[in-house]
Amino acid sequence: MHFRPQFALLLIAGVHALAQAPVDSQPASSNVRGAAFPRIHTDRRVTFQVKAPGARNVQVMPGGGSNGLGKGPFDMAKSPDGNWSATIGPVQPGFHYYWLLVDGVPANDPASETYFGWGRQSSGIDVPDLALDFYEPKNVPHGDVHIHWYSSNVTGKMRRAFVYTPPGYGASARTHFPVLYLQHGAGESERGWTFQGRANFILDNLIAAGKAVPMIVVMDNGYATRGDAPPTAGQRGNEAFGEVVIRDLIPEIDRAYRTRPDRLHRAIAGLSMGGGQALATGLGALDTFSHIGAFSGAAGRNMDLKTASGGVFTNAEALNKRLKLFWIGCGEGDSLFPGAKRMHEELGRAGVRHTWWEGPGLHEWQVWRKHLHAFAPLLFR
Amino acid sequence: MHFRPQFALLLIAGVHALAQAPVDSQPASSNVRGAAFPRIHTDRRVTFQVKAPGARNVQVMPGGGSNGLGKGPFDMAKSPDGNWSATIGPVQPGFHYYWLLVDGVPANDPASETYFGWGRQSSGIDVPDLALDFYEPKNVPHGDVHIHWYSSNVTGKMRRAFVYTPPGYGASARTHFPVLYLQHGAGESERGWTFQGRANFILDNLIAAGKAVPMIVVMDNGYATRGDAPPTAGQRGNEAFGEVVIRDLIPEIDRAYRTRPDRLHRAIAGLSMGGGQALATGLGALDTFSHIGAFSGAAGRNMDLKTASGGVFTNAEALNKRLKLFWIGCGEGDSLFPGAKRMHEELGRAGVRHTWWEGPGLHEWQVWRKHLHAFAPLLFR
Repeated sequence: MHFRPQFALLLIAGVHALAQAPVDSQPASSNVRGAAFPRIHTDRRVTFQVKAPGARNVQVMPGGGSNGLGKGPFDMAKSPDGNWSATIGPVQPGFHYYWLLVDGVPANDPASETYFGWGRQSSGIDVPDLALDFYEPKNVPHGDVHIHWYSSNVTGKMRRAFVYTPPGYGASARTHFPVLYLQHGAGESERGWTFQGRANFILDNLIAAGKAVPMIVVMDNGYATRGDAPPTAGQRGNEAFGEVVIRDLIPEIDRAYRTRPDRLHRAIAGLSMGGGQALATGLGALDTFSHIGAFSGAAGRNMDLKTASGGVFTNAEALNKRLKLFWIGCGEGDSLFPGAKRMHEELGRAGVRHTWWEGPGLHEWQVWRKHLHAFAPLLFR
Repeated sequence: MHFRPQFALLLIAGVHALAQAPVDSQPASSNVRGAAFPRIHTDRRVTFQVKAPGARNVQVMPGGGSNGLGKGPFDMAKSPDGNWSATIGPVQPGFHYYWLLVDGVPANDPASETYFGWGRQSSGIDVPDLALDFYEPKNVPHGDVHIHWYSSNVTGKMRRAFVYTPPGYGASARTHFPVLYLQHGAGESERGWTFQGRANFILDNLIAAGKAVPMIVVMDNGYATRGDAPPTAGQRGNEAFGEVVIRDLIPEIDRAYRTRPDRLHRAIAGLSMGGGQALATGLGALDTFSHIGAFSGAAGRNMDLKTASGGVFTNAEALNKRLKLFWIGCGEGDSLFPGAKRMHEELGRAGVRHTWWEGPGLHEWQVWRKHLHAFAPLLFR
């Protein structure tokens, strides 16, 4: 990467945004080809810039309240050439959704890639953590992520899954692999774990280091409604997801890929909404799954172990025999953390064997990358 | 699909945008999940709507002068609830880039998917042609599109290609396939032929009907610069693409996929800038390629057959022996059409055997879908 200082000291009176010379900065990896901004400084401040001569007001708006860019909106300052700039931070490392507010209207930053989140294509910025490289592309063999289209009997529509196959999958035509079903969060899509989460690079690196067994990872869309019962008001549009997994997705994956099609070689996990779906689908089908993971505390908030998941927790001994891995994690800065931790404690009191992860982090992808990195090595052992 | 009339007659005085009751309309297939707008009417008018209470002026802007939505910008009209609407058209069938102008600032429509074009993520709308379904997903076997990461010695960086494998590729581990290298246009990316062009569905349908031989289609990014020579001002950033194809991409694809690694089973084609790259790369390496296609007239504008491509056209007999297919096409409404047609005529006079396509169409994806649909059946026969 080259350091290209794009502008000298900007002096603008009467505005709050800091616009300083980014002499020690470089374009974010999430920028589109050739875009000089956003720029990430060595101290993890970030400078945004956009051309908007006709706007009265432009701001940088982080996506949601649990966002490593901080609480927005951040005012941008206008220069005589019509460019608006702001330097914020230092910010947290990791992937953060954001958008610009142009006269109050949410607009993507043309200089950044878009990522499906918040129910639409949102701008995103990936801020490196210089102490972590487990999710960076390295000089190791890379697996493919297949975009896989299939017909769903449950929804009556075509669906699309992203399917990671491990390095060498194409060559070793006789080897069959275990499968992890891995779900995104609310407002996201089947694309999230690849483009925001970098699940493929996390697995590439773990497999190359011998820390995870080679596996297929199926990332489907968590939204699904029955074809014969359109969603009614108040529903989230994800009501038929579990049924799609059992009736459509697993048979399709076992048909189209070289899998080991039994419960011992099948796991399900997810983040936030996807974590709740993994718990509901996995615990409801222990003849299908033997490994379950819930990232960032979904469904932990008000869980009653007596009634949850059809009472499966009331017989800890039976559950412990069936479940090879029950994994729960949450970032300490996540508003769901207290509920997740309470679930961990209640499971412990009930004698349900499980693995608990806690550590710094918000309700954001950087935590979920860490979760996958901790979870995947424990699978299929 | 359900017809859901979302609003009744909008009466707004003093504005130019037509806002009528879309009782015979439905959401575009390019909308994000659940978005009611943009809506496509049965007469191919399109109604756009966006919430922008703080904006003084909002317009719909088609991407470029050769766009099936027509010449913009189109004014939107504000309703008391802060929604802005416009109904335009009837528009041309096909995929069209567009964006909104919010107080003059380009902003994506949050209701539409984004597609990499114009050097950034742009909104897009796909308007069906009721007379054509060759690019629609049908109830036939579907191939996967692999997202494939590889290291380039030429650029010194990691690159990403999209690779279509035909239906059954995963199952029939002994079959090897011919390969088409297929390139996007300027300002686009390796994603274009899948998400804008629907190359995978075009091939699925052709293969299911027995009209094309099963093949692998490699769609790489057309931008590449040498790692040891950063681009200088005035360059497009695509200067090293041909070298990447020959030195990095083809060896990588022949290593990672079950190909037939010889010139008779290798084709290269592209649209616009990618057509020029296909001509330059293909004609410059006839020991590597035997089929070449140029969609939408790239490089045809001022071609001198005496000097073009190292003089390869001066010996028509030798060229005709080497080239199994030389395919050129252009839409009649494309500003490049006269140049492309002149190239076709000069090739004819020079005795260079080739296939020529002309028909209605602009410099847009609908023509390139038709080109691929006409071109692919002629390959590897």
